[in-house]
Amino acid sequence: MKTFQLLSFVTKGAQLRYLPNCLRSAEIFTSSLREKLVPEWGSKKHASKRKLLVNTNHLKMDAEIEKQLAPLRARVKEQGDLIRQMKTDGAPEMDVKKLVQELKSRKKELEDMTLKLYPQDFFDRAKMNDLIKRRFFYDNSFAIYGGITGQYDYGPLGCDLVDNMLTEWQKHFVIQERMLKVNCSILTPEPVLKASGHVDKFADYMVKDVKTGECFRLDHLIKQYFEKYIADKKVSQEEKDEISRKINLLDDMTMKEMDDIVKAYDLKSPSTGNNLTDAVEFNLMFPISIGPSGNMAGFLRPETAQGIFVNFKRLLEYNQGKLPFACAQVGNAYRNEISPRSGLLRVREFTMAEIEHFCYPDNKSHTKFNQVADTEMVLYSACAQMDGESPKRMTITEAVRGGLVANETLGYYMARIQQYLLKIGINPKKLRFRQHLGNEMAHYACDCWDAECLTSYGWIECVGCADRSAYDLSQHTKGSGVRMSVERPLKEPKIVDSVVALPDKVAIGKTFKKDAKVVQEALASLSSEAAEDMDKTLNEVGECVVNGFKLTRSMVPAFKREQKKIHVEEIIPSVIEPSFGIGRIFYSLLEHTFRIREDDEKRTYFALPAVVAPIKVSVLPLSNKTEFIPFVTQLADTLTDLNLPLRVDDSTGSIGRRYARTDEIGIPFGITVDFDTVNNLAHTVTLRERNSTEQVRMPIDEVPLIIRHLADGKLQWKEVTEKWPKFVAQETTK
Amino acid sequence: MKTFQLLSFVTKGAQLRYLPNCLRSAEIFTSSLREKLVPEWGSKKHASKRKLLVNTNHLKMDAEIEKQLAPLRARVKEQGDLIRQMKTDGAPEMDVKKLVQELKSRKKELEDMTLKLYPQDFFDRAKMNDLIKRRFFYDNSFAIYGGITGQYDYGPLGCDLVDNMLTEWQKHFVIQERMLKVNCSILTPEPVLKASGHVDKFADYMVKDVKTGECFRLDHLIKQYFEKYIADKKVSQEEKDEISRKINLLDDMTMKEMDDIVKAYDLKSPSTGNNLTDAVEFNLMFPISIGPSGNMAGFLRPETAQGIFVNFKRLLEYNQGKLPFACAQVGNAYRNEISPRSGLLRVREFTMAEIEHFCYPDNKSHTKFNQVADTEMVLYSACAQMDGESPKRMTITEAVRGGLVANETLGYYMARIQQYLLKIGINPKKLRFRQHLGNEMAHYACDCWDAECLTSYGWIECVGCADRSAYDLSQHTKGSGVRMSVERPLKEPKIVDSVVALPDKVAIGKTFKKDAKVVQEALASLSSEAAEDMDKTLNEVGECVVNGFKLTRSMVPAFKREQKKIHVEEIIPSVIEPSFGIGRIFYSLLEHTFRIREDDEKRTYFALPAVVAPIKVSVLPLSNKTEFIPFVTQLADTLTDLNLPLRVDDSTGSIGRRYARTDEIGIPFGITVDFDTVNNLAHTVTLRERNSTEQVRMPIDEVPLIIRHLADGKLQWKEVTEKWPKFVAQETTK
Repeated sequence: MKTFQLLSFVTKGAQLRYLPNCLRSAEIFTSSLREKLVPEWGSKKHASKRKLLVNTNHLKMDAEIEKQLAPLRARVKEQGDLIRQMKTDGAPEMDVKKLVQELKSRKKELEDMTLKLYPQDFFDRAKMNDLIKRRFFYDNSFAIYGGITGQYDYGPLGCDLVDNMLTEWQKHFVIQERMLKVNCSILTPEPVLKASGHVDKFADYMVKDVKTGECFRLDHLIKQYFEKYIADKKVSQEEKDEISRKINLLDDMTMKEMDDIVKAYDLKSPSTGNNLTDAVEFNLMFPISIGPSGNMAGFLRPETAQGIFVNFKRLLEYNQGKLPFACAQVGNAYRNEISPRSGLLRVREFTMAEIEHFCYPDNKSHTKFNQVADTEMVLYSACAQMDGESPKRMTITEAVRGGLVANETLGYYMARIQQYLLKIGINPKKLRFRQHLGNEMAHYACDCWDAECLTSYGWIECVGCADRSAYDLSQHTKGSGVRMSVERPLKEPKIVDSVVALPDKVAIGKTFKKDAKVVQEALASLSSEAAEDMDKTLNEVGECVVNGFKLTRSMVPAFKREQKKIHVEEIIPSVIEPSFGIGRIFYSLLEHTFRIREDDEKRTYFALPAVVAPIKVSVLPLSNKTEFIPFVTQLADTLTDLNLPLRVDDSTGSIGRRYARTDEIGIPFGITVDFDTVNNLAHTVTLRERNSTEQVRMPIDEVPLIIRHLADGKLQWKEVTEKWPKFVAQETTK
Repeated sequence: MKTFQLLSFVTKGAQLRYLPNCLRSAEIFTSSLREKLVPEWGSKKHASKRKLLVNTNHLKMDAEIEKQLAPLRARVKEQGDLIRQMKTDGAPEMDVKKLVQELKSRKKELEDMTLKLYPQDFFDRAKMNDLIKRRFFYDNSFAIYGGITGQYDYGPLGCDLVDNMLTEWQKHFVIQERMLKVNCSILTPEPVLKASGHVDKFADYMVKDVKTGECFRLDHLIKQYFEKYIADKKVSQEEKDEISRKINLLDDMTMKEMDDIVKAYDLKSPSTGNNLTDAVEFNLMFPISIGPSGNMAGFLRPETAQGIFVNFKRLLEYNQGKLPFACAQVGNAYRNEISPRSGLLRVREFTMAEIEHFCYPDNKSHTKFNQVADTEMVLYSACAQMDGESPKRMTITEAVRGGLVANETLGYYMARIQQYLLKIGINPKKLRFRQHLGNEMAHYACDCWDAECLTSYGWIECVGCADRSAYDLSQHTKGSGVRMSVERPLKEPKIVDSVVALPDKVAIGKTFKKDAKVVQEALASLSSEAAEDMDKTLNEVGECVVNGFKLTRSMVPAFKREQKKIHVEEIIPSVIEPSFGIGRIFYSLLEHTFRIREDDEKRTYFALPAVVAPIKVSVLPLSNKTEFIPFVTQLADTLTDLNLPLRVDDSTGSIGRRYARTDEIGIPFGITVDFDTVNNLAHTVTLRERNSTEQVRMPIDEVPLIIRHLADGKLQWKEVTEKWPKFVAQETTK
């Protein structure tokens, strides 16, 4: 019982005081503070904002397809409207929650059908995986020891691609936005993750084979069983529909609901047919014991964010006490997935890049917002999801001014995230920002948008962008006893009532001995509200507890009450958090840039933009004759001196075959050294661009700097073709 | 009992066959293969090579000091000579080992006295640590939760400094040498680290407080006790000398020898005075359980090297089957230190950058060796250490041609390591390469040199550069059953005797059922030597074991003997490994660049080279007047567009104070925007260099590109001062 928190300034009232405007009217939810943080995604206010001036030209619908989708859209809307009505009527939370489950199921049906009906680019995952494996972009870790699921090693190409993505990330965010950066420990003591909520809440449901002990993630197990079940021709269409609906609901089921399914359908272990244990919660963090004694429990960090939060005070000091500022961290994080699958999308060890932008809760404007004001984005709002509507294209200004996106800073980052993703090669037609529905939002967030990429696994979350309000800093304030706050000068001094405990130092000294100092410090740092409460409790009960120490009236005989003039207010900053799953972006990028040549389906390649391509240029001598060597060597050395990773392919294959080999691994430019280079006084070479396979002819001396500029994005291929004469040659792999 | 290894081509003979020349005559050691890998560091051959033409001008000794050191040098040499004699006489290994311990103790005495007598640069560690902490270069992790020993968080400056060091490393090694690069899992299953030797051998000795369970690293505990013991005035000089000698011997003591000291001196827990347990070996790896079942044991990797080794086959394939090639990996590694101390020098979580250069064991020449041929280095050979001599300065060519450094590739990397360290700012006067003595070399290395930096903690190992021979690939071949070898075409085909087992498939099928296939594959892949051995064993004993399966004569009734013509030989490559401890280099760099201004001892700063400085340039407006703002903003934006991290300091402090503040954090260049900038048509600014505090005057338009070139090392400050007029101004912090 910690009746009187050292840090009682983090009271419900204080926290609400700094709630962003978007949450002020979120009073439709009832019980606790937690619900108060859920935004008004279903309220009429939002509904009215749907009439924004939006540009939908880019999403022209096929009338025939829309006719097929119409009943599904209607089903979603019907449920959405029902939920709104229930809320307006003040229905119990549990009832609303059930309706939301049904809503999600209907949404999923709509989405699946949409993906099915609208023509997708043809994509051959097996072909891509073959290329990935053959050229060692990545592979299962420890393959020679039989491999290990959920862990991957990045080979030379994958490793360089990730590094280039991160270098670009660093330029785009850290340098351009002048962010701070930290690199914090991965081994994390338990109290830190207790405070953050991970020790208690970061879990999946699991069942075990009662005999072999094999573990199964419960939702995956049920899904797998159901999918097999409805594949049976004997099952009636009605039952199939019923079960499909259940599959769609799985994400939101409680442990008990899932356990009930296991029992109702008498599910067994798929490997052995043995019975299964009851479901348990399995914490996804890897436990670790720090030091040799076994006394310091810890975990591998499940995210990089916490390292920034625990250093907030030092970072604020570094920033000379000024808000707003942002701090970034790139590094590994770990989740002990129960049964990892879907390749790179669900792994045990992964790289994250996170930004924590700290700002005043009552001022979330952004000074550079005007620089992104016209950015057009595809936004899939919570309301649109509830109404069975499609995502809408609009500018970020429209979204923020209309209240769809909670504030300028959140909107600014969403636009910047999009710019980044497009720069590295994500297909704009396969990118959308989806707003979280109320009940899937993390318990701290007050508005959250996921940048989702469309892949052959469906729409997958690649970047989260959340306004986490003051949640994290409040939690660490409570957990550590250090005030994670900032002082802001008041425009005018304020007179406040002050209540201060006047302890009997002798009595406290006698009782607590060496702890006396701690007790006295705790009393001295009580807020006025807490001191007032304590006085009352001592009057009523005769004793109270402060930081685990039991105090009696005789130890704190009196309280001093006076009026005080204060010049600053203490504020816990809000946090806007863009959080990047690098492995998922990497995988989406591979899918989005995978190509098959129209004229030869064996010729596959990655159309990676030069800025992230692992190798920027190839050098291909047409002959192995000795007179070619000095040209090739000098060219390669000059390119290397410009820090351009390159590949010299002097093998004996035809030039077409060598082009194919360099295309495969995404090399954007190829230089061919031929007999004209060697014999002609102009010493020209051909320069070829991978996607168009166009070639131009230019002097060998000029080509290295041109490649450097192309690789930096300072020069476009079109400009090169305009300046230099085209070179026409047959390109054949025969 | 695995009498017949699947992979018996890794026999003693085969391995020795590919031993580098430097090891061929190392027959003075007796027992096992392990000793055969220890080079001839004490043999006469080396002694004769000491007469190399070496340039010692740079190490002029002070005659007076040398007189004092002479007896210590003589003591070392006496012991070194004794050891050589013992070896020549074929004395037992244990006896030699004891003498080596004494040798090390004498070496340490000599080194301590040398450091004491030769004047060192004045260095104030407390002042540096104050600056590090105050400006948040790094700090204890989780400080708000009381901190944690052996783990550090890098703040914005430390983080950028490390990143810049690594970017430069990437350019210097990976791009310039056209290396491959991988990024592998940190969570490592046990069998991988069993094969590498870490599960069995990677341990320190530890004792525990019998009551509290507090753990102590045994050598540290004894050292601490002894140091306190000899500080007592009552202890005789004789006993002090005896104990000092013991302290110096600690590194090489066995667990029993240390345990004996605990008993002889009746050591107690320093915290409680309680008794201590007997010593135990404590494995330094962090154990981890992968997945939810608890069945897959693993560890956090203790080094990055293993990830490269286990991927060797894929990397070889990527490199089109050709040797030599090198592969690099940068990443975290973990060691569960018993009682970490010495700040960043001994931590539980650290960044390594490792290179594995794979080459033919019989050809360790390097094509680019001539490019580093004239590099002068300070080499402290094993022989010099044994003779009580000083390190010698010589070119790397002299060292390799004279046989001091085992081969060209090792020498090439040593020179490149030195170039890198000097480029990032390590003080050349505080850098040396020390050759490992025989018995401190890892059990796999056949020559090893450490790049050591002199710090206030003494000479510390920052980079290891070892020829690991074929050890690692052989171990993983045994551990995984996958041949980690390369096929090299023979110049002429060779006729060899071939012995092949002819199993009775029916008998094997009956006995082993589903394992029959494995058994038959094992028999099929036996080497000729192993098959011959098996035939003999079956004749003599009637049974034998293959991969854990017991076979009888009736299962393998016959062996086919024939002569075969072979066209390729199978070779396990050698590995040369440069291995960088990034945290240690980082710390040494801070010490080496820490400066105190001569005219004001309060003004401390880091003289970091521009190429690694976290922030490249500061922008300092002389006034806060509004007409300054557009100049400052545009200048800052232009610098940012050039990817130059910058700091705008528009605070109200005097310009001198602001210079001091930017100097502190190592910003190499400062641009002052003053009234002339604003009012004068030329719009000139001053540009100041941190170390010299010199200033020049130039137009504001030209300054950004000049900073870019300075930061890239493409332009030197001297060139700037020659082109632009000097600007003289008082620099005061008052």
